[in-house]
Amino acid sequence: MEYPLLSQIRQPDDLKQLAPEQLPALCEEIRTLFIRTLSKTGGHLASNLGAVELTVALHRVFSSPEDAIIFDVGHQCYAHKLLTGRMDRFQTLRTEKGLSGFMRPDESPHDPIVTGHSSNSISAALGIAQGKRLSGQPGYAVAVVGDGAMTGGMIYEAMNNAGRSKENLIVVLNDNKMSIAKNLGALPRYLTVIRTRPSYYKFKRRVERIVKKLPLIGNKLYHSISHSKILLKNAIYHSNIFESFGFHYLGPVDGHDLHKLAAVLELAKQEKRPVFVHVSTVKGKGYLPAEKDPGSYHGVPAFDIETGSYPQSKATFSDVFGKLLCGQAQQNMKICAITAAMPQGTGLDAFARRFPERFFDVGIAEEHAVTFGAGLAKAGMKPVFAVYSTFLQRGYDQLIHDVAIAGLPLVLAIDRAGIVGEDGETHQGVFDAAFLNAIPHIAVYTPANFTDLRFAFDKAMEADQPVAVRYPRGGEPDLPGDYQTEDRPFVWYGDRQAGQVLITYGRLFGEACKARQALAAKGIPLAICKLNQIKPLPAELIDAIKPFSAAYFFEEGMGSGGVGEHMGSRLLGAGFTGRFRLTAIPDEFVPQSTVAAALRVYRLDAASMAEIICGGMEPCPKS
Amino acid sequence: MEYPLLSQIRQPDDLKQLAPEQLPALCEEIRTLFIRTLSKTGGHLASNLGAVELTVALHRVFSSPEDAIIFDVGHQCYAHKLLTGRMDRFQTLRTEKGLSGFMRPDESPHDPIVTGHSSNSISAALGIAQGKRLSGQPGYAVAVVGDGAMTGGMIYEAMNNAGRSKENLIVVLNDNKMSIAKNLGALPRYLTVIRTRPSYYKFKRRVERIVKKLPLIGNKLYHSISHSKILLKNAIYHSNIFESFGFHYLGPVDGHDLHKLAAVLELAKQEKRPVFVHVSTVKGKGYLPAEKDPGSYHGVPAFDIETGSYPQSKATFSDVFGKLLCGQAQQNMKICAITAAMPQGTGLDAFARRFPERFFDVGIAEEHAVTFGAGLAKAGMKPVFAVYSTFLQRGYDQLIHDVAIAGLPLVLAIDRAGIVGEDGETHQGVFDAAFLNAIPHIAVYTPANFTDLRFAFDKAMEADQPVAVRYPRGGEPDLPGDYQTEDRPFVWYGDRQAGQVLITYGRLFGEACKARQALAAKGIPLAICKLNQIKPLPAELIDAIKPFSAAYFFEEGMGSGGVGEHMGSRLLGAGFTGRFRLTAIPDEFVPQSTVAAALRVYRLDAASMAEIICGGMEPCPKS
Repeated sequence: MEYPLLSQIRQPDDLKQLAPEQLPALCEEIRTLFIRTLSKTGGHLASNLGAVELTVALHRVFSSPEDAIIFDVGHQCYAHKLLTGRMDRFQTLRTEKGLSGFMRPDESPHDPIVTGHSSNSISAALGIAQGKRLSGQPGYAVAVVGDGAMTGGMIYEAMNNAGRSKENLIVVLNDNKMSIAKNLGALPRYLTVIRTRPSYYKFKRRVERIVKKLPLIGNKLYHSISHSKILLKNAIYHSNIFESFGFHYLGPVDGHDLHKLAAVLELAKQEKRPVFVHVSTVKGKGYLPAEKDPGSYHGVPAFDIETGSYPQSKATFSDVFGKLLCGQAQQNMKICAITAAMPQGTGLDAFARRFPERFFDVGIAEEHAVTFGAGLAKAGMKPVFAVYSTFLQRGYDQLIHDVAIAGLPLVLAIDRAGIVGEDGETHQGVFDAAFLNAIPHIAVYTPANFTDLRFAFDKAMEADQPVAVRYPRGGEPDLPGDYQTEDRPFVWYGDRQAGQVLITYGRLFGEACKARQALAAKGIPLAICKLNQIKPLPAELIDAIKPFSAAYFFEEGMGSGGVGEHMGSRLLGAGFTGRFRLTAIPDEFVPQSTVAAALRVYRLDAASMAEIICGGMEPCPKS
Repeated sequence: MEYPLLSQIRQPDDLKQLAPEQLPALCEEIRTLFIRTLSKTGGHLASNLGAVELTVALHRVFSSPEDAIIFDVGHQCYAHKLLTGRMDRFQTLRTEKGLSGFMRPDESPHDPIVTGHSSNSISAALGIAQGKRLSGQPGYAVAVVGDGAMTGGMIYEAMNNAGRSKENLIVVLNDNKMSIAKNLGALPRYLTVIRTRPSYYKFKRRVERIVKKLPLIGNKLYHSISHSKILLKNAIYHSNIFESFGFHYLGPVDGHDLHKLAAVLELAKQEKRPVFVHVSTVKGKGYLPAEKDPGSYHGVPAFDIETGSYPQSKATFSDVFGKLLCGQAQQNMKICAITAAMPQGTGLDAFARRFPERFFDVGIAEEHAVTFGAGLAKAGMKPVFAVYSTFLQRGYDQLIHDVAIAGLPLVLAIDRAGIVGEDGETHQGVFDAAFLNAIPHIAVYTPANFTDLRFAFDKAMEADQPVAVRYPRGGEPDLPGDYQTEDRPFVWYGDRQAGQVLITYGRLFGEACKARQALAAKGIPLAICKLNQIKPLPAELIDAIKPFSAAYFFEEGMGSGGVGEHMGSRLLGAGFTGRFRLTAIPDEFVPQSTVAAALRVYRLDAASMAEIICGGMEPCPKS
């Protein structure tokens, strides 16, 4: 049998039956399975490798699902999945209808909440702990938080509330010394101070004892200190930030020492108040390429196990954006770049190297990022916040309040806009078009290819107002050779004299062109109106669509509140009486699958487009 | 002259001309002006009274606008307004086209950013400081933060970034020992520990000196401590949370002692790194009724100066909600209430007294509040988060990620939905209908009167999914005597056989009824379709509207992305060919004025409704 120990474990109770000396071998099996599986499926490798012993220890000491264990972000919960009955399905990781790469309550009762976005676990765990107490249910609540997540403000909101409660909430800091990229900020440096003092906790005990005995020692020192004894005790009791928030602090402990981990977690269970357990782990532990370069192995596509190398994909929008911005920053000293712990994912790594003075990695702190950008803009700089669509949701209020009301010229480079694929519900970039739609003073551009992207950023840099440029994950779609990108709010392609028009924006324009070709083959003419800018939509656009007898709007985003509805409503208001059909994401969350599969499901691919348009004609020509 | 000193001050430089001994009299004048003006205009009284000396000291030591001074939230920036040339307009506070109650860059160059929502000031100040440095501009950046704002997570995101910078960013903690309501949480308790040790800073210096001398002292103690000397120093250096984040800490100082304030601020200017100045103030200082009960005097309507009493308004939606929830909580032990520092404003004060175990004031921490509620719901409780529409914007991502994806039955009691009046742009509740519109799995109810409110909360308590109930500031509108509220997704009023239908929801239904009456007097029949639920809109609603020859949708919220556009688009998709006119908030921010005036401006009042409908008819009957 390939995984003799792991395959015995159907539930956490089975894990408790193993002898302690069997556990290192189990951890080895888990790591092997990770590397083999992820080399095929892709996924979060380095963080999961680092959390193996910690997860085993948690499931030895606690009893899930009665005890709720939440892995913040969730990209270190793979071992948890294996130990809670999901080994058989592990190969389906991040595939359509397969296991999620994060926690999903609909996948297992051992996943208490949805995870994916950072820094929410203590809030949820506190709610669960207090809810259990109020309703008389047994069980602990445990939040496992990475050091990266500690840069997110929600953690402090939650600690402030947890600290005054009497809940035995247990927060485990999985400190692997880096966020997704190298962690920057005062707090990580501070954690280092704590971490590099293995005797820290013992020391505190010792000093406390000494202080208690102080009256016995002589003369001058006594005189100086005695009045301040309480103060000194206070200073020492509150000498670390977690204690300031009212937590009991335990640690740091070696996160790969199963015995010590079990001991400290047992200790944490005995407390009558919130406990902070500081665990020190090595990201990528047990797989040399990942230990050496954990940043690159944070989230990986399929890769070669022997060498650790993975195929370089063709140029992506992120890459091209990064290059574009470097070029612009070379000319314009005012341009700054901001990222929330995603310098690689957003294509900013070259900018970071070339313009370190003007590059700001603020940590997983999108709220701060937006308002910090507003401050830079206020001081006359030209800040560009590069952020995944899904994470910009965190800065929604700041966009309205700190940027849009004042009309400050912050540029949003919204990456991963639209369907993102394997990361699933929590990471889809399907809300930004709708939520930006309602915010005054923001111009929103939607490039379909790299030339459009350049046009958009050229305009963004000139603008004296907030500008968003949104583009998808991956590369540019194939576009017909005779298509000429133009730098205008909307452009035409195809037969403008056709009675029917397809309207779309962004990546879907590629699908639209294919649909047109398929329809043309059937003798059906089609005009395509491609929106390069979805906000505001000019009155001329409405006028231009009005003469058509049928308008088909395709939107890779939420239908409700989206651009298609805005257009439909304006067309109706303008007296358009033709057929109107809006195809967009319906009132549901988009599950994981490939992008292509999701486009098919939501009828946003070329074939569905052609079918819908054909179906709208009576009679529909037969091919 | 009534204000002999104050009226000399046209700009901060004039303030610097005064002799120090004139300053107490100046502060007295400022307080007198506050009380006199606010007794007529209403406004944030208690917090402004507490910040008078601090503001005077800031403008003596710093040079605005070269030095950017940001008052977090801004409800303590009235003295700043008076000292920066806005005394003449002070009586226009919070009125149409008058002075804002918060900071507004379009009002004065002395207001660096828009303020209104809490905890964003350090982020903005850091951006300004780094932008100034990068572009070679002189000037300090100062953020004045209340202790309440310290419960918001953005503060920590910003401190984490500021702490590692070398910017001489100056954060002044205006610690008045309470947020808007009494501050709860571990951090405020911790501030108390610091605050009650006036010798704290001196003490630290002393201990440092002692520790440096330690090798000189004898034997056992030496042996115990000497190895740990560096550690002890570390513990003491980092003994407070602000220092953990890399700030230099100064304080606490008496916030009503002008001399000490000036001294500590001068000291702060000398630093080469971020400084945290802890200032202790008394909320309501100088006006006895406000000192005694600062919570009630946080934001006040017009009041009687002698007695401090202000007229009790008629029952509001908030009041009725609070009573309703108490009634429900009496029956159902699972019901919990959550507020983000707004127990009074949201009507939860009675609940807090009657069910303290199930009441959670989490501080100004909307992100945490939403996810904490998700945790409670996960544990089987029935949490209700009562929050102003504008502040719910802070929890947008958490609503999607932590609540809606899992479909957890959190109830949102969205107060101050729609136009709020005097607080202006930053506080309008005009985005929630649009942003909820795009979030799957949420049902949204829009009561127009107290009976509707009860129906909505009855359903919310039964629901097994997220539910939002949104209602306006103030009381219920006058509705016609023959109108019978029904507990259905949409209800009809008026003449269903009329060719034209007015569609609306919430408070505007009152205006619609008046418009119908006015039109009836002219012999024009009108059907009114009142939406009790705006999400999801049932297919039967679309079918029911289709037969009308004209549909007029009125929405007290953003038009773009709102419910009206959703309906217009669906009507068009369903083949509706009649006239459609959507009247809603256009692509701009709604400035301060009375609610009635704003409704008129945006043509959402009864008279405008009648006019629009009449204008849509050709020919329009003359009255």
